[in-house]
Amino acid sequence: MNAAILTIGDELLNGQTIDTNAAWMGQELNLIGVSITSKLSVGDDEQAIRDGLDYSFKQASLVIVTGGLGPTKDDITKQCLAQYFDDELTFHQGSYDRIEAYFSRTNRQPTEAHRQQCYMPSKAELIENQRGTAPGMWFAEDGKFLLSMPGVPSEMKGLMKNGGLSKIDAVNTQQNIYHYIIQTAGMGETYIAEQIEEIVASFPEFLSIAYLPGLASVKLRLTAIGSDAVLIKNETEALGAKVVSILGDAVYALGNSTLEEVIGQIAKEKDLTLGTAESCTGGNISRLLTSIPGSSAYYKGSIVAYANEVKKEELNVSEETLKNHGAVSEETVTEMVNGLIERLKVDVAVAVSGIAGPSGGTPEKPVGTIWLAIGSKDRLVTKKLQLVKNRDLNIKYTSVIALNELRRFLNGI
Amino acid sequence: MNAAILTIGDELLNGQTIDTNAAWMGQELNLIGVSITSKLSVGDDEQAIRDGLDYSFKQASLVIVTGGLGPTKDDITKQCLAQYFDDELTFHQGSYDRIEAYFSRTNRQPTEAHRQQCYMPSKAELIENQRGTAPGMWFAEDGKFLLSMPGVPSEMKGLMKNGGLSKIDAVNTQQNIYHYIIQTAGMGETYIAEQIEEIVASFPEFLSIAYLPGLASVKLRLTAIGSDAVLIKNETEALGAKVVSILGDAVYALGNSTLEEVIGQIAKEKDLTLGTAESCTGGNISRLLTSIPGSSAYYKGSIVAYANEVKKEELNVSEETLKNHGAVSEETVTEMVNGLIERLKVDVAVAVSGIAGPSGGTPEKPVGTIWLAIGSKDRLVTKKLQLVKNRDLNIKYTSVIALNELRRFLNGI
Repeated sequence: MNAAILTIGDELLNGQTIDTNAAWMGQELNLIGVSITSKLSVGDDEQAIRDGLDYSFKQASLVIVTGGLGPTKDDITKQCLAQYFDDELTFHQGSYDRIEAYFSRTNRQPTEAHRQQCYMPSKAELIENQRGTAPGMWFAEDGKFLLSMPGVPSEMKGLMKNGGLSKIDAVNTQQNIYHYIIQTAGMGETYIAEQIEEIVASFPEFLSIAYLPGLASVKLRLTAIGSDAVLIKNETEALGAKVVSILGDAVYALGNSTLEEVIGQIAKEKDLTLGTAESCTGGNISRLLTSIPGSSAYYKGSIVAYANEVKKEELNVSEETLKNHGAVSEETVTEMVNGLIERLKVDVAVAVSGIAGPSGGTPEKPVGTIWLAIGSKDRLVTKKLQLVKNRDLNIKYTSVIALNELRRFLNGI
Repeated sequence: MNAAILTIGDELLNGQTIDTNAAWMGQELNLIGVSITSKLSVGDDEQAIRDGLDYSFKQASLVIVTGGLGPTKDDITKQCLAQYFDDELTFHQGSYDRIEAYFSRTNRQPTEAHRQQCYMPSKAELIENQRGTAPGMWFAEDGKFLLSMPGVPSEMKGLMKNGGLSKIDAVNTQQNIYHYIIQTAGMGETYIAEQIEEIVASFPEFLSIAYLPGLASVKLRLTAIGSDAVLIKNETEALGAKVVSILGDAVYALGNSTLEEVIGQIAKEKDLTLGTAESCTGGNISRLLTSIPGSSAYYKGSIVAYANEVKKEELNVSEETLKNHGAVSEETVTEMVNGLIERLKVDVAVAVSGIAGPSGGTPEKPVGTIWLAIGSKDRLVTKKLQLVKNRDLNIKYTSVIALNELRRFLNGI
């Protein structure tokens, strides 16, 4: 079954509000086998709402509407829906009683605006709102279905779980959806697409693939849609496993885990402590590793050595190394790793030094030249990056690459 | 002028991606006097894109399209646009040369997919993408305007700033707009609104105010729209200056400077070096300070002391202090400041220690208890925060408050 989402409110258009409702609804509906075909936001305007309803019902037989149900004058969704379904608003005593009871608990009286709020389209089946005053409304006519809810996220979620989703489920003709997520790092989208071209070409018709590129990472999403839930799940998992085996070490997780989470899991499993010695990333790798709850179990700390004197005094990088090879060199990051292991007594250290830009480059070491090293007492891996991005992206990109190399290093222990 | 936003990509519909692009574009377009009338997301499907274009051009004369420009097969935006404008795709050598040059810097060769990516609608004016391979496209025909950009946020933002916004500005000639931005930190939105209630009530009709709350900060945007450019500018500046004088020390900048930039300016003017000693913020304050180009002129580094033994050994926090007062205490952050000044030889140090959550709280020190200290050899300021947010927000909020206190401390030197 397909659904179109229609959200109503000026605040959604001027950039003051980021619409998180739609993503939540998309996930919940996917789980009961409903695909979203479009997601439209319009302002609090009668013509815009009418156009939006026309457009949305052209895309799908189910339309989910949020917003515009409050007591203020700019909330006109209900009138528009009544008009659309050739219906009238009639006073609904049950709704008024609920509001009165709700207010009496806080010693308040409903206002005339609240009374007006109780005029409901007669064709709508009302769904009780346990978190606010405006109920949800369910319309079903001529094979068209519409669910209308307030835009306040907590009220919308409450209504979906306490009636909305089950209404939809009841009219859904039983299509099943199955997603298989493969997360990769350190390999470009185009390169991945070439590697798996043959297997993707062999996908059955019910299975599609999407490439979702991030910074130094690509998420692959395999989506299967079909009536036989077991069949599509089994076939998707078998084909997904083949994709994973082709991409090998570039795959860091199945599902939605982050690199930082995966690193934490490995460190805990192998009982290893971690630390970072950062120059150009300025603490960003440390911030990412400590963003995980419970990271204090394996993460001890970082020395952010932005100035060369801090590299020397806190990380034991030698004057000669800095003089002969420069702060951005394999020799320096190697000494940073060893210095950090000695000072913070960690099992594995990550060190980064580079020229993030926009200034500081030379002909031999242009902006974007980055050296990184990962090491333990027994083993060391170094890597040179030559990036061509701006300062912000150079820092973020380097951080992801460093985390990915750390993951691979930990896997090798 | 009105604009309709059309975003393309299956990932926007199934809830895997929260669409932050649209909110950013809404804000930027509002700043140049363009209102968004609708915001539509559709999947990677030809019919859906065509319907979306029809719908969007019914709402506005300018349509802004993002997504579906990558080299993979599911990206079909370009073909749909060519069809919509009755145009053909022709090979664009300049784009191929750019990709080739971009790849040669990293010793790679473009693939056939990249070559296919260089077929462009002949009617489109291309806008160079400095952060990726797919250029922006600008169509202008029969009073209809369309800007197409990749969906990757950094690429979209780069294209808007390096050409897109000015293209739109050039065809939107009706009114003059003047913005006056006041940035504040450490003061709540409601409190600010109360403080400036009287002066805001006296604003002339052409002048409006928007409160844009961020984390521990509020940006005030005064927007004047009128035909007399000089008059609206002069009046807005006079009234803006009055608002600034009422809000006093909470104002850290006029215009779009960040706290980190303002701190950098003060440090350079006063010739002071800075460093941080971080526990619960995990390097985030260091990351923010080093996000500024040229920060190496005043920023020396950080010791991220996540483990208590690192606090003791690298920051000279005494065993007794940790035992008697705990790691999250005024005494510990005071010793962390002193330890950092001694170890990194900085003029001013920031120290933070707290319980970011979700675990680690006690009845006396619940999750969200944070101590911070800012100090030099001669002066020390400490502050306790009691936050009630989640881990991520506790870290980010603490970082902004710490930077704001650092700014106030530096102003007092």
